[in-house]
Amino acid sequence: MMATENRREFLLVFSAAVFLGLLSITFVLIWVLQYREGLAWDGALAEFNWHPVLIVTGFIFLHGIAIIVYRLPWTWQCSKLTMKFIHAGLHLVAFICAVIAMVAVFDFHNGGKIPNMYSLHSWLGLTALILYCLQLVLGVGMFLIPITPVTWRAAFMPLHVFGGLSLFGSVIAVALMGITEKLIFGLNNPKYKDLPPEAIFTNVLGLLLVVFGILILWIATRPSWKRPSDQILHTLHTNGGGEDNTKVSPALAQLSDGADAEPSADVRRRINKFDDQTN
Amino acid sequence: MMATENRREFLLVFSAAVFLGLLSITFVLIWVLQYREGLAWDGALAEFNWHPVLIVTGFIFLHGIAIIVYRLPWTWQCSKLTMKFIHAGLHLVAFICAVIAMVAVFDFHNGGKIPNMYSLHSWLGLTALILYCLQLVLGVGMFLIPITPVTWRAAFMPLHVFGGLSLFGSVIAVALMGITEKLIFGLNNPKYKDLPPEAIFTNVLGLLLVVFGILILWIATRPSWKRPSDQILHTLHTNGGGEDNTKVSPALAQLSDGADAEPSADVRRRINKFDDQTN
Repeated sequence: MMATENRREFLLVFSAAVFLGLLSITFVLIWVLQYREGLAWDGALAEFNWHPVLIVTGFIFLHGIAIIVYRLPWTWQCSKLTMKFIHAGLHLVAFICAVIAMVAVFDFHNGGKIPNMYSLHSWLGLTALILYCLQLVLGVGMFLIPITPVTWRAAFMPLHVFGGLSLFGSVIAVALMGITEKLIFGLNNPKYKDLPPEAIFTNVLGLLLVVFGILILWIATRPSWKRPSDQILHTLHTNGGGEDNTKVSPALAQLSDGADAEPSADVRRRINKFDDQTN
Repeated sequence: MMATENRREFLLVFSAAVFLGLLSITFVLIWVLQYREGLAWDGALAEFNWHPVLIVTGFIFLHGIAIIVYRLPWTWQCSKLTMKFIHAGLHLVAFICAVIAMVAVFDFHNGGKIPNMYSLHSWLGLTALILYCLQLVLGVGMFLIPITPVTWRAAFMPLHVFGGLSLFGSVIAVALMGITEKLIFGLNNPKYKDLPPEAIFTNVLGLLLVVFGILILWIATRPSWKRPSDQILHTLHTNGGGEDNTKVSPALAQLSDGADAEPSADVRRRINKFDDQTN
């Protein structure tokens, strides 16, 4: 595939993701401002409404953009360290949005004498928030603190990536449960089952979130869309643990049974070199 | 990493996934038999109960096992064609379970004069079922019909894998929305918000499904746990489109800007050879 064609495909999918993300934010704003009680910090329903707005804006849209920020070709001229700070910074803003979103719900529940933390939505949502915080702390500790050994970084990377993508998917699943709860509890006369315009509108919001999530996960998992300097580590990882496949054809190295050696000094030196270059 | 250690890690995660999957099935059975109206085909609630039972058993557990069936080391001595039939067969059984699960709900709704297809759960669930059917048909057409060109197979594989894993995650998300709906509608006096034992029990079922899903996705995305003959195609794919990286160090090939060539005859011959060997 031509590099320019690859680039064009990336831009197409990225634009679609951003468009769907911004459309989701528009939808959630129209939902709370037109169909619901608007936004306020009054301990009542208008305070609850900050919950979906902040989740969609921060914990879904910014979270998604933070995940794929390394994939933007126009950032490849920036240093890796700069991009790490942007990645971590966007995740931090997403985390703060999610925390305020939780506070809004607890505040609303306490004001209305509604119990907290009974639903599967709340159990999974709080679990996701705690794990997201852990991911953020471990990410900073592993990849932003300069003294962390490069071998730890390499060993932790697959878990960081898989954990991050799983959390992102889980947050969207939890949002879908939240929409379901809100439409059942919030719609009366006509009810959810009578499918009034608000129900259709909010169901469409749910669909938008799913398609946004799938596009972000597609972008994040295309090896040819990676930042060029990251593709080296990726190749080392996907070639199975710490095997040194750089000296022979990777296809053949995969088949050899004797490929259990530790990374050679040569590979380690090269990883170190890249880490130095890119920090 | 030692190959035996890698194998032991796989077995540990695989055993945990199977255990959680079987535990989920046990939970859903206890739920409908102990807490709910049992199972029957009577057009009433006992018929509805086939819906969660068949979804958890077929559309989640068998679906998950079908995804990772190529990863089981004791199947690596079987031909690839045999494994493809087992993979497709398990997905077909999962699909049939999901169809019967839908029929049960429509039948129950029609009997009880409850509208169909109004909820986000139903919209996403039916979409997932239709896409799952499409995935099955395309999968058979691409990978089981012998005349499909090997270049089509190679081009379709990333979409097949990503689409399959996304669908699996989506099905679990839809199940969580279903549990949420059922607990809100089904629990009265005490209500869901009063968190009676049934609510806790079924929330735990939701958590089990999430952890099962994450373990399956982890197994499916570990390159070193792949069937050895599949690791070649994986390496060719992850090394970026159709670039020929087999002759030079993969790490360096990733960096070269001139790597836009079509797969060389050499690589194509090797793919063909493996496809022949493994069919």
